[in-house]
Amino acid sequence: DFLNALNEVKPAFGADDSELEENLTYGIIYFSESIKAILNDGMLYVENVRVQERNRHMSVLLYGPSASGKTALAAHIAMKSGYPFIKLITPASLVGFRDDMAKKDYIHKVFTDAYKSPLSMLILDNLERMIEWNPVGARLSNNILQTLVTLLQTPPPKGHRLLILATTSQRSIMEQLDVTSAFDREIPVPAVRDLNELGVVLSEARMFASSAHVEEALKTVGEYASSDTVGVGIKTILTTAETAKLSSDPVNWFGEQLAGQIARYNPTM
Amino acid sequence: DFLNALNEVKPAFGADDSELEENLTYGIIYFSESIKAILNDGMLYVENVRVQERNRHMSVLLYGPSASGKTALAAHIAMKSGYPFIKLITPASLVGFRDDMAKKDYIHKVFTDAYKSPLSMLILDNLERMIEWNPVGARLSNNILQTLVTLLQTPPPKGHRLLILATTSQRSIMEQLDVTSAFDREIPVPAVRDLNELGVVLSEARMFASSAHVEEALKTVGEYASSDTVGVGIKTILTTAETAKLSSDPVNWFGEQLAGQIARYNPTM
Amino acid sequence: DFLNALNEVKPAFGADDSELEENLTYGIIYFSESIKAILNDGMLYVENVRVQERNRHMSVLLYGPSASGKTALAAHIAMKSGYPFIKLITPASLVGFRDDMAKKDYIHKVFTDAYKSPLSMLILDNLERMIEWNPVGARLSNNILQTLVTLLQTPPPKGHRLLILATTSQRSIMEQLDVTSAFDREIPVPAVRDLNELGVVLSEARMFASSAHVEEALKTVGEYASSDTVGVGIKTILTTAETAKLSSDPVNWFGEQLAGQIARYNPTM
Amino acid sequence: DFLNALNEVKPAFGADDSELEENLTYGIIYFSESIKAILNDGMLYVENVRVQERNRHMSVLLYGPSASGKTALAAHIAMKSGYPFIKLITPASLVGFRDDMAKKDYIHKVFTDAYKSPLSMLILDNLERMIEWNPVGARLSNNILQTLVTLLQTPPPKGHRLLILATTSQRSIMEQLDVTSAFDREIPVPAVRDLNELGVVLSEARMFASSAHVEEALKTVGEYASSDTVGVGIKTILTTAETAKLSSDPVNWFGEQLAGQIARYNPTM
Amino acid sequence: DFLNALNEVKPAFGADDSELEENLTYGIIYFSESIKAILNDGMLYVENVRVQERNRHMSVLLYGPSASGKTALAAHIAMKSGYPFIKLITPASLVGFRDDMAKKDYIHKVFTDAYKSPLSMLILDNLERMIEWNPVGARLSNNILQTLVTLLQTPPPKGHRLLILATTSQRSIMEQLDVTSAFDREIPVPAVRDLNELGVVLSEARMFASSAHVEEALKTVGEYASSDTVGVGIKTILTTAETAKLSSDPVNWFGEQLAGQIARYNPTM
Amino acid sequence: DFLNALNEVKPAFGADDSELEENLTYGIIYFSESIKAILNDGMLYVENVRVQERNRHMSVLLYGPSASGKTALAAHIAMKSGYPFIKLITPASLVGFRDDMAKKDYIHKVFTDAYKSPLSMLILDNLERMIEWNPVGARLSNNILQTLVTLLQTPPPKGHRLLILATTSQRSIMEQLDVTSAFDREIPVPAVRDLNELGVVLSEARMFASSAHVEEALKTVGEYASSDTVGVGIKTILTTAETAKLSSDPVNWFGEQLAGQIARYNPTM
Ligand SMILES: Nc1ncnc2c1ncn2[C@@H]1O[C@H](COP(=O)(O)OP(=O)(O)OP(=O)(O)O)[C@@H](O)[C@H]1O
Ligand SMILES: Nc1ncnc2c1ncn2[C@@H]1O[C@H](COP(=O)(O)OP(=O)(O)OP(=O)(O)O)[C@@H](O)[C@H]1O
Ligand SMILES: Nc1ncnc2c1ncn2[C@@H]1O[C@H](COP(=O)(O)OP(=O)(O)OP(=O)(O)O)[C@@H](O)[C@H]1O
Ligand SMILES: Nc1ncnc2c1ncn2[C@@H]1O[C@H](COP(=O)(O)OP(=O)(O)OP(=O)(O)O)[C@@H](O)[C@H]1O
Ligand SMILES: Nc1ncnc2c1ncn2[C@@H]1O[C@H](COP(=O)(O)OP(=O)(O)OP(=O)(O)O)[C@@H](O)[C@H]1O
Ligand SMILES: Nc1ncnc2c1ncn2[C@@H]1O[C@H](COP(=O)(O)OP(=O)(O)OP(=O)(O)O)[C@@H](O)[C@H]1O
Ligand SMILES: [Mg+2]
Ligand SMILES: [Mg+2]
Ligand SMILES: [Mg+2]
Ligand SMILES: [Mg+2]
Ligand SMILES: [Mg+2]
Ligand SMILES: [Mg+2]
Repeated sequence: DFLNALNEVKPAFGADDSELEENLTYGIIYFSESIKAILNDGMLYVENVRVQERNRHMSVLLYGPSASGKTALAAHIAMKSGYPFIKLITPASLVGFRDDMAKKDYIHKVFTDAYKSPLSMLILDNLERMIEWNPVGARLSNNILQTLVTLLQTPPPKGHRLLILATTSQRSIMEQLDVTSAFDREIPVPAVRDLNELGVVLSEARMFASSAHVEEALKTVGEYASSDTVGVGIKTILTTAETAKLSSDPVNWFGEQLAGQIARYNPTM
Repeated sequence: DFLNALNEVKPAFGADDSELEENLTYGIIYFSESIKAILNDGMLYVENVRVQERNRHMSVLLYGPSASGKTALAAHIAMKSGYPFIKLITPASLVGFRDDMAKKDYIHKVFTDAYKSPLSMLILDNLERMIEWNPVGARLSNNILQTLVTLLQTPPPKGHRLLILATTSQRSIMEQLDVTSAFDREIPVPAVRDLNELGVVLSEARMFASSAHVEEALKTVGEYASSDTVGVGIKTILTTAETAKLSSDPVNWFGEQLAGQIARYNPTM
Repeated sequence: DFLNALNEVKPAFGADDSELEENLTYGIIYFSESIKAILNDGMLYVENVRVQERNRHMSVLLYGPSASGKTALAAHIAMKSGYPFIKLITPASLVGFRDDMAKKDYIHKVFTDAYKSPLSMLILDNLERMIEWNPVGARLSNNILQTLVTLLQTPPPKGHRLLILATTSQRSIMEQLDVTSAFDREIPVPAVRDLNELGVVLSEARMFASSAHVEEALKTVGEYASSDTVGVGIKTILTTAETAKLSSDPVNWFGEQLAGQIARYNPTM
Repeated sequence: DFLNALNEVKPAFGADDSELEENLTYGIIYFSESIKAILNDGMLYVENVRVQERNRHMSVLLYGPSASGKTALAAHIAMKSGYPFIKLITPASLVGFRDDMAKKDYIHKVFTDAYKSPLSMLILDNLERMIEWNPVGARLSNNILQTLVTLLQTPPPKGHRLLILATTSQRSIMEQLDVTSAFDREIPVPAVRDLNELGVVLSEARMFASSAHVEEALKTVGEYASSDTVGVGIKTILTTAETAKLSSDPVNWFGEQLAGQIARYNPTM
Repeated sequence: DFLNALNEVKPAFGADDSELEENLTYGIIYFSESIKAILNDGMLYVENVRVQERNRHMSVLLYGPSASGKTALAAHIAMKSGYPFIKLITPASLVGFRDDMAKKDYIHKVFTDAYKSPLSMLILDNLERMIEWNPVGARLSNNILQTLVTLLQTPPPKGHRLLILATTSQRSIMEQLDVTSAFDREIPVPAVRDLNELGVVLSEARMFASSAHVEEALKTVGEYASSDTVGVGIKTILTTAETAKLSSDPVNWFGEQLAGQIARYNPTM
Repeated sequence: DFLNALNEVKPAFGADDSELEENLTYGIIYFSESIKAILNDGMLYVENVRVQERNRHMSVLLYGPSASGKTALAAHIAMKSGYPFIKLITPASLVGFRDDMAKKDYIHKVFTDAYKSPLSMLILDNLERMIEWNPVGARLSNNILQTLVTLLQTPPPKGHRLLILATTSQRSIMEQLDVTSAFDREIPVPAVRDLNELGVVLSEARMFASSAHVEEALKTVGEYASSDTVGVGIKTILTTAETAKLSSDPVNWFGEQLAGQIARYNPTM
C-alpha cells in the first residue's frame, strides 16, 4: 500500500531537498490522531496525481492557526512523494522583486518550469503574505492573487501532471477572497489543544531533563493559562522550550512565557 | 432540421479543436432534461447567426454554479457548430500578459482576428476571473471589463458574422456590473440537484464496479448530506469518484468526500 | 417649412453616411406620436444652429431605456440634416486606444476636426460606456468625462457652428455626474409601451406572415407578460422576431422569449 | 470718481480683449439693482489693487447659479479695468493638456506671466470644472486645486500688483474644499427671480416683436411654471428666446421650453 | 536677559531677511498680553537651541485661526534670533515642482542645507497647504507629510543645532494626522477677540483719521456683528480697513465688510 | 551569568557604535523595577540567538508610549551585546529615497548585509513611521510593511544568526496590521508613572540645584496635573528640565510646562 511510504525514510531527490528539510527543524511529532490523517490524505493526493489520467491536476489547501505546523507538514509530504520536480515558493522568494508585476512574473515562471517536468509539485507557502494581505483597509495585491488563482485552476499541458500544496493561517480571509473555492480539496491543521497533547510534545521532543520536569511544566502552564485548553501552535511550544533552557529556572520561565503566548493568541480565553 | 446536428458526431475543424476537447474530459452526460434544452437553444443561436442577415451578431451568456459544466457545454456547442473560426479565451490566456492594458489589447486582437473570418465564434470562459473580480473591496479591472462589454456589443464589419458564448459562475455580480445587460440572451446551467440525478451521473460515467455499488454510494451520500438535495457540480462529482478509486474503501470515501464538498458549497444546508 | 425635410429621402452626403445607415437596420417605425415629436424637435435644433448667429453652438441629450432606438433616431436626424460634417463617436471608436489619456486625446481631436468645418454635427453615442461607467464602486474615467463635458460646453471658433447630439440609457447616473446640466436641451426616447404599440411595430416591420399571426403573437405576449404594459425597447422586439423566424413555432417562441426579455428589463413588474 | 468708469465705453486694450467680448454675446442687462452693486464692488477692488501699496494683491470669487451671468460680469469688469495685462483661464484652456500635471504647469505659467506686468488681472472661470470636480465619489484633481489655492494666496513679487477674479456655480462644494476661505472677498450673482425681472430681460433684449408679445410670453411662463418665482439664469432665458424665433409659434414655444428649464433647475419647485 | 532682544530693532542678517520682512506688512501690534507671551516663549526656544548641548534640536508649532498673524510672528522671531541660517518654506516654495516626489526632495534638500550651518532655523509655513490637505475625501500627500514629520524628528549631525518653527490654521487636522505629536512644543496664536482689542488694532495702525472715527467704526461693527465677540484675524482687519480708505464712506463700508467677514468665519455666531 | 553583562561598561565595537550612543543622551536611569527586567529579557534573547542552534533567528518588539525610552533601551542592549554586526534603521534612514520601492530595496539590502555576518543584530526603530502610517484614511506603505514583515519572519542562511529588535509607540495599530503576530516576542516599555518615579528621574539626572528644588518641582507638577498619576515619557521630562534651566524661574517653569505636556498626552485625565 502506497500509504506506507509515510513511514519510510527514503528522501525525495532534487534541488530543493535541503530547503524542504529546513522547515522540519524539530521533525514531526505525532501528538494527535489528526497528524497521521493529514499525512494519509496528503499521500492519497500525491498518488492520485501520479496515476489517474483524468485527475492529473489537483490543488490542496492546508489551513490552520499560526505556528501549527502547516509548512512542516507540506514539506514532509513533498519529501516523501518521490516527485522529480518539487518547488517551494514562500513570501521570502518574492521579497527581492521590484513590484507585484515582477512577483507575478516570477510565479508564472515557476509554474512554467513545473510544466516542463512530467510530474511536478509546487508548494505555495503562506498565501496571505504572498498576496500581501493587510487587514487595515483590506489591502492586497490583486495582481498576485489573480495570477495565483488562475494558475491554480489551469491544467498543465497534455502528458504533464501537477500537484499544488498551499498553506494559510487566514482561511476565513481566503474564503472572502474567493481563493478557497479555487482549490480542489482542503485539509485542516490543528493547534496543540490540551495539556495531554502538550505533554506528548514536550516528552517526544525531549525538552526537559526528566518526565518530572515535564509534569511540573504542564502544571505551571495550567496555572498561568488557568484552563485545560492550550490552543497554541507546536512551533511556539518548541521554540519557547528551547529558549527556556538558557534561563536560570527553565520550567517556570517556560510556563510563564507559554502562558503569555497562549493569552496573546487567544485574547478572549 | 438543423437541431439534429446535436446528435451527430461530426467534429468542428480548425486550430482550436483539440483545445475544445480538453474541456470535455468526461463527455456530456444527459442527467436532466435541461441539458438537452441548453444544447437546443445553443444550436438555434448558432443557426441564427449563420443565416439571418439582420441578426448577424449575437452574444449569449451561460451561467450556473461552480463546476456545473458551463465550459464543457460551450465547448460542445462550438464543436458541433461547424463554424470556420472558433476561439476560446480563458483567464489562463491572459495570465502571461504584463498588466490589464496588455490583457485588453490581447482581447481586442482576438476580436479583430474573428472579424477577418466571415463566420466566427468566440468563447469567453469565466468572465469573473477574466475581469479579475475580487469580492473584498469589490476589486476588478475596469479596463478589461469595459473592453469586453464594448466589444460584446459592437457588430463585426459588414459581411461578417459573430457569435459570442460566455460563461460565469457569478451571475449576480455580473448583473451588478451591468455586464448581463450587454448580452442578447442568457442560458442557465444547473447543478446536479438530487440523488436521482446523481445516480444517473454515476451510472453513465461507469464510476463504480456495479449498480449495487452505485446504490450504496447514493445511500452514503444521502446519510452524510442528510438531505435529498445534492446541489453540487457535475465536475466535482466526477473527479471525486475518480480519486475514490484509489482509496481502500472507494464507496465510503466517495460518500464522505462528496458530502464534504456539498457542505462546502452549500454552507447553510 | 424646414420640418418637412423629415419626410424627404434625400440622404446626407459625407464620409460617415454608410456608418449612419448601419444604425438603421430596421428603419424608423412610427409606433407612437412621440417618435414624430422627437424628430421635429431634433430638426428645429438642426436649423437653429444652421442659422441663428447667437445660438451657433448647441448640445442635445437623447435619453431612454436600453434598446429604445436612441442611436437610430440620432442617426436619422443626422442623415436628414444636410450638414457637411457629421461624425459618430461610439465606445467602439475608443476601444483600440491604450488608456483614457489616449481616448481623451482622440475625443479632443474629433472636436478639433469638427471646428474646421463651418457647420458640424457630432454624435456621442452611449455616454455611460464612453466614460467607462461601472456601477460597482462607481468607477468611471473622470478624465474622459471632464474632457467630454468641457468640450460640450466650449463654443467653436468664431464663424463656425456645431451641434452635438448625445445618447444615454442611464440618465439618472448622468444627472448624478453633473453631465445632464452640461447639455442645453434634453429629449426623452420611450420604450414600446403597450400591446397596441407592439402591434404597430410587428405589422409595420412585416415580421409575421399574416395579421392573424400578429394577433396571436400579441395574445401570447399578453399571457406571458400578464400585463398590458410592455416596456421593452423596439430593438429587442425586432431582433427577437427575426430569430423566431427560424424556430419551428415562431409565434409561440417569440411570445415566450419576449416575455422573458420584458421580465429581465422590468424585474419588479 | 473711479466708479463712473462703469458707464464709459472705453474698452480695455490687450491681446485678450476680443476673447472677453465673446462672453458678452447679449451685453449686460440691468434687470435688478444687484447687477449695478456687483459692478460697483468689482470696480472698487480694481481700484484698490491699482493704488493701495499694502493691498496690491487681492482675490475675489463670483458665485451664483448656472447661467446666471458670472462669466459675463467678470469679463465686463475686466474690460472696464484698463489693466495692461488681463488673462482669462477656462476649463477649455486646459482641455488640450495631457494630464493634471501639465494642466497645473500651465496654470503656474499663466501666473508667472502675470507677475511680469506691473498690474495684472487673472480670471479663473468655472473653478469646479477647472479642478475636474465630479460629485460621484467626490472626484477631483487635488493637484490642480492645491496649485490654484496656493497661487491665489501668494503675493506677486515686490512692485507688482495682481487682482484675481474667479467664478463658480458650486459655492457649497468650494466651501467644503476649503477653497472659499482662500479668497479675500466673495460676490454673489443672482438668477432672474420673478416675472417682473423676466419682463425687463425680454424687453431690453428685444426678443419679441412687441411688448404685447412680451406680456403674453410672461403669462405663458407663469402658467407653465405655476409660480411667481422664476429662478433661472439669464443666459438660459436669452438663448431659449433666440431659438423660439424659428418656431412657428414663438411665444408659446418659449413659454413651454422655459418652464421646462425652470423645472429642470428647480426640481422641488 | 536675552528676552530683551525682543524690543531691539537689530535685524537678522542673511539672504532671506527681506523675505521675512514681507510677512510683516503692518508690523506687530501688541493688542493683547498674549502677543508678548508668544514672543517671549519663542525667544526662549531660540536661546535654548543656541546654548543647551542636550537640546540642540527643537520643533515648535504656532497654531491659530486664519489670518491671526502666525506667519508674521514666526518671521518676527526669526528676524530677532540672529541665527546665521534662516530659511522660510511656504506652499508657494513647492508649487513649481512637478509632483510630491519632487516636493519632498526639495524639503529634504532644505533640511540638508540647514545641517551645514552650525545654527539654523527653518520656518515651515502653513503645514496644511504644504501637505496638500483637502477635507473632501481627506486627501493629502502622505509622501510630503511623512517626509516633514520624519525630518522634524531627526536631530541634525553632531555639532549642529536646529530650531524648527511651523504654522497651521488647522490644528485639529494636524492632531488627527499625528503631526502635532511630532512637535516638541506648541504655541497658540489668538484672533482679535473683542471690540476693545479691535480698538487697539485700529488706533495703533492709524487706519482712520481720528479716534472719533475709530469709535464710530467700533460701533458700526458692534451693530452688524450684534455681539461683543469679534473673533477675526488681525490680517483681515487691517486689509479691510486699507480698502475702506478708497470708499466714499470708509467707516460704514469698513463696519459692514468686517461684519461680513466675522459672519463668514464664525457661521454659528 | 551572562546577565551581569548589563552592568559592565564594555562597549560594543563596530561602525555603528557612536550612532547607538547618540540615542543615550541622558544615559539609562533605573526609575522603576521594570527597566531592569526589560534589560534582563533583552540580554536573554541576545544570548539565545548567540548559542541555541534551533533558535538562531528571533524577533522582539519593544512597545510603549511616546518618549518612554524605547530607542534608548534597544540601543543599550545592542551596545552590551558584543555582536559583530549591529545596524540601526530609522525612518530618517529612509527619508532620502525616492519612493517606497527604493525604501524597501534599502531595507532588503540591510537584511542581506546582516546575513553576511555570522551573528547580526538589526534595530528597526519606530515601525509606524517606517511604514509611513497615517491614521487619517489609514494610509501606509503596504510595500514597506510587507517587506518588513516578510524579512522579519525569514530565517538567515544556514550558519548565520540574526536578532531583530524593533520599536513602536503604536502597538494597537501594529496589531491591527498583523505586524505584532510576526514577532516572536514582545516587551512593554512603561512611561514614568507617578511623582515617586518622577522624583527618582529628576534626582538621578541632577536636573535641579538641590533636592529641595526637586521636592518643589514635584509639588508644582502635582498641583498643575492635579493627580498622582504622571504618565509621561522620560525623554519629555529630561528635555523639559533642560530647557527650564534657562528660564528665570526654572522650578515653576518646569512644573507648568510638564503639566502641559501631561495634559497633551493624556487628554482625558
Ligand atoms: N506534528 C507536527 N506537525 C507539524 N510540525 C511539527 C510537528 N511536530 C513537530 N513539528 C515541528 O514544528 C514546527 C512547525 O513549524 P511550521 O513553520 O511548519 O509551522 P507553521 O504552521 O507553518 O507556522 P506559520 O504559521 O508561522 O507559517 C517545525 O519545526 C516542525 O519540525
Ligand atoms: N451534462 C454535462 N454538462 C456539462 N459537463 C458535463 C456533463 N456531463 C459530463 N460533463 C463533464 O463534466 C465536466 C464539467 O466541467 P466544466 O469545467 O465544464 O465545469 P464548469 O462549470 O465550467 O466549472 P467551473 O465553474 O470550474 O468553470 C467536464 O469534464 C465534462 O466532460
Ligand atoms: N421609431 C423607431 N425609433 C428608433 N429605432 C427604430 C424605430 N423603428 C425602428 N427602429 C429600429 O430599431 C432599432 C433601434 O436600435 P438602436 O440601436 O437605435 O437602439 P438604442 O436605444 O440605441 O439601443 P442601446 O440602448 O443598445 O444603445 C434600429 O434597428 C432601428 O432601425
Ligand atoms: N446682467 C447680466 N449679467 C450677466 N450676463 C448678462 C446680463 N445681462 C445679459 N447678460 C448676458 O447673459 C449671458 C450670461 O452668460 P454667462 O456665460 O456669463 O453665464 P454664467 O453664469 O457664466 O454661466 P455658466 O454657469 O454656464 O458658467 C451673456 O451672454 C451675457 O451677455
Ligand atoms: N500682533 C500681531 N501678530 C501678528 N501679526 C500682526 C500683529 N500685529 C499686526 N500684524 C500684522 O498682521 C498681519 C498678519 O498676517 P499673517 O499672514 O501673519 O497671518 P496668518 O495667521 O499667517 O494668516 P494665514 O492664516 O492666512 O496664514 C501681518 O501683516 C502683520 O504685519
Ligand atoms: N530608563 C530609561 N529608559 C530609557 N531611556 C532613558 C532611561 N533613562 C534615561 N533615559 C534617556 O531618556 C531618553 C529616551 O529617549 P528615547 O528617544 O529612547 O525615547 P523613545 O521612547 O524612543 O521616544 P520616541 O517615542 O520619540 O521614539 C534618552 O535620552 C535616554 O538617554
Ligand atoms: Mg508556515
Ligand atoms: Mg468553466
Ligand atoms: Mg444605442
Ligand atoms: Mg460661466
Ligand atoms: Mg500664514
Ligand atoms: Mg524612539
